[in-house]
Amino acid sequence: MFRRILIANRGEVAVRIIRTCLEMGIETVAIYSTKDKDGMHVKIADKAICIGPANASESYLNIGRIIEVAKAYEVDAIHPGYGFLAENYEFARMCLENHIKFIGPSSDVIKLMGNKINAKTYVKNLGIPIIPGAEEVVVDKDKAKILAGGIGYPVIIKATNGGGGRGIRKVYNEGEFESNFVLCGKEVKRSFNDNETYIEKYISEPRHIEVQILADEYKNILILGERDCSMQRKNQKVIEESPATILNDELRSKIYDFSKEIALKCNYVNAGTIEFLVDKYKNIYFMEMNTRLQVEHSVTELVCNMDIVKEQIKISCGKRFEYKQEDIIFRGHSMECRINAEQPKKNFSASAGIIKNLNIPGGNGIRVDSSIYTGMRISPLYDSNIAKLIVYGNNREECIRKMKRGLCEFIIDGVETNIEFLLKMLNNEQFLMDRHNTSILNDLINN
Amino acid sequence: MFRRILIANRGEVAVRIIRTCLEMGIETVAIYSTKDKDGMHVKIADKAICIGPANASESYLNIGRIIEVAKAYEVDAIHPGYGFLAENYEFARMCLENHIKFIGPSSDVIKLMGNKINAKTYVKNLGIPIIPGAEEVVVDKDKAKILAGGIGYPVIIKATNGGGGRGIRKVYNEGEFESNFVLCGKEVKRSFNDNETYIEKYISEPRHIEVQILADEYKNILILGERDCSMQRKNQKVIEESPATILNDELRSKIYDFSKEIALKCNYVNAGTIEFLVDKYKNIYFMEMNTRLQVEHSVTELVCNMDIVKEQIKISCGKRFEYKQEDIIFRGHSMECRINAEQPKKNFSASAGIIKNLNIPGGNGIRVDSSIYTGMRISPLYDSNIAKLIVYGNNREECIRKMKRGLCEFIIDGVETNIEFLLKMLNNEQFLMDRHNTSILNDLINN
Repeated sequence: MFRRILIANRGEVAVRIIRTCLEMGIETVAIYSTKDKDGMHVKIADKAICIGPANASESYLNIGRIIEVAKAYEVDAIHPGYGFLAENYEFARMCLENHIKFIGPSSDVIKLMGNKINAKTYVKNLGIPIIPGAEEVVVDKDKAKILAGGIGYPVIIKATNGGGGRGIRKVYNEGEFESNFVLCGKEVKRSFNDNETYIEKYISEPRHIEVQILADEYKNILILGERDCSMQRKNQKVIEESPATILNDELRSKIYDFSKEIALKCNYVNAGTIEFLVDKYKNIYFMEMNTRLQVEHSVTELVCNMDIVKEQIKISCGKRFEYKQEDIIFRGHSMECRINAEQPKKNFSASAGIIKNLNIPGGNGIRVDSSIYTGMRISPLYDSNIAKLIVYGNNREECIRKMKRGLCEFIIDGVETNIEFLLKMLNNEQFLMDRHNTSILNDLINN
Repeated sequence: MFRRILIANRGEVAVRIIRTCLEMGIETVAIYSTKDKDGMHVKIADKAICIGPANASESYLNIGRIIEVAKAYEVDAIHPGYGFLAENYEFARMCLENHIKFIGPSSDVIKLMGNKINAKTYVKNLGIPIIPGAEEVVVDKDKAKILAGGIGYPVIIKATNGGGGRGIRKVYNEGEFESNFVLCGKEVKRSFNDNETYIEKYISEPRHIEVQILADEYKNILILGERDCSMQRKNQKVIEESPATILNDELRSKIYDFSKEIALKCNYVNAGTIEFLVDKYKNIYFMEMNTRLQVEHSVTELVCNMDIVKEQIKISCGKRFEYKQEDIIFRGHSMECRINAEQPKKNFSASAGIIKNLNIPGGNGIRVDSSIYTGMRISPLYDSNIAKLIVYGNNREECIRKMKRGLCEFIIDGVETNIEFLLKMLNNEQFLMDRHNTSILNDLINN
């Protein structure tokens, strides 16, 4: 087993990973920017190294510096968490070159799945349905318009190397195409530093369903069930749950088979998520694969009684699975709300401040993953997610009641959050009846 | 279902019960003493009524006043929690007389089991082994000495109407008997306001094993497994866990059969715990029955995926169990540490103060039940237990690692607690090897 791991991340996910390391008896090296010197991950790690200024490109995205620290402190492996370098195939390659285990899949697989067009083509060639659309990069707006017309409106313009819900625009008709294409291009440039976009059919009223897999180095693949992440605001997940109650046995088995096929064929190793859209006619379309731990992994942990980070570490260490698919017993229902430092009334712009008073919910079936504490300064510089409230119950209804109870107990004074907004969403009739789709939050906010 | 419940308690257990009521959509009426006006239970209940001064006899033990409030606010039922009136058969009777459901067993059963001598005689007559000893009240010290000699030293002197580990003295030989008998009598007088004691054989190096049962009004009894509560300090439980890993299938089935027999024969209804001692030769002895929710019920909830308070409410409402014994699936291991406001270095005397800084542990497999918050004043007037840290893992070893991680994250500044002491206990070799017995903490503290 690894003796020492560097966690190349900050905030909630860094704390999440360090906790598992502590439980496994593995030493941890945290890294932090000057802005994060009082971060919880800095406090609970065995060692914490300042690697640069607040600006992520000079700290959390600074591959050279991170590798340097990893070598200086003789770590056996690096866990990238989510965000930052988690899906950077260059980083994975650099780790390998420096004889440090990257806790995640191979650089090649990250590269393949990171390019959304290549990933779609790859998956289509396996005979798995993808969202109809141009399987090529479009840069020229006239050519793009012709392609969009061929696919048929509404269409979606997306960043080829995108992620995290950025660089995505929906276009309803030809008249709106050009302006949206130009705006999307600018956003893509800003977010991903390239100008590559592609166009695909807009699937009407879809549910976002994703499958969590684990794969060891010996071609064993475990399906840890699925998650429904249809509660999104501008393609950013807000509420996630497992299982996806809209799936029947047939659909579930189909979506599992697709996921297993993709993971097997691309020689996937470690934890990964295959994302699908399911339209109102129950057609399933492959959307993309996330080659990393996801924010919402916690709901899966609760329904299948597992520590996914622990499994990731064991896989990276070359361990073979100790159990078979049939040993994984799914039980109950789990739901997660992302608590963000943001201002719902000001277009959800980031909020900042010092946490003056904090009350964390507790009791039966309540799990809180966060990195906040009383007196902590929340900076608007980084991701706005500051805590996750995860509940477990016997069924969806119980989870919703428990989530409301938990959110009501949550007090974060000194910085504005989306807690009230989440409570409102939990009372939404469409959501309660399990009839929502990925547009629900955008529609509600705009109306 | 009940529309409104009064919670006749304070602190952690009141919060525990209110949370379940919130999740069930049941309105709650909290009661509080003047000292507790800022209590968490006061804050989260729908209504909170001040019922008297700090002194418990004028507030939390004031039956007349509590019944008055219950009637004034038209509650359907009263949950007594643990401690205070939870095992007061007069209170249960008064509730019944006033047409308020007492969430617990009948007044008669509380009375039977509350008298430790009667309970022992009752159980012995069912053919279940009890600890050898005098099945009668002893007041006269000379008569007592003769009885003790007949049983054979070492013996234990216990309060007939005792509970909570008070009024218990161990005597090793005849020479020490008289002084201990007198001292015990004084403690009994102070704690239970009577002078009734009894004498029983001291079981050497025993484990404390207890069985959690649920019984509905239709003679259905469910066994929710057992707990090992051998980590005690002066007969007060400190660390509890489930399952009891020292039991094999045969012993487990025996102890379950005994428990079921007792519950059935005494027409038990609601949640209850039957406590046993298991000696080093694996002999099982009935000790007593607790006719109420117990502090350590939470570990059972985690291993059998249930909300015991919810079940109590449903039973009191006249509901029949929705499941059979075979539907209860035991999974994994759970452990609880009681976090007390006390000073381990000053003979564990109560500590007081204002909580200046609070950090509650979180993450996978961590449950915290407490009633504390930053800025709260901890009074030495009431029970010193201020929080419970409960962990869930696949096995005992995982629980211990998780518990250590959780305790290390726990920060309660401003009031002294037993957290360091608990961490020390978790590193004790006997405990780690599962070879401890109920004397371990006393022995460790004295050495």
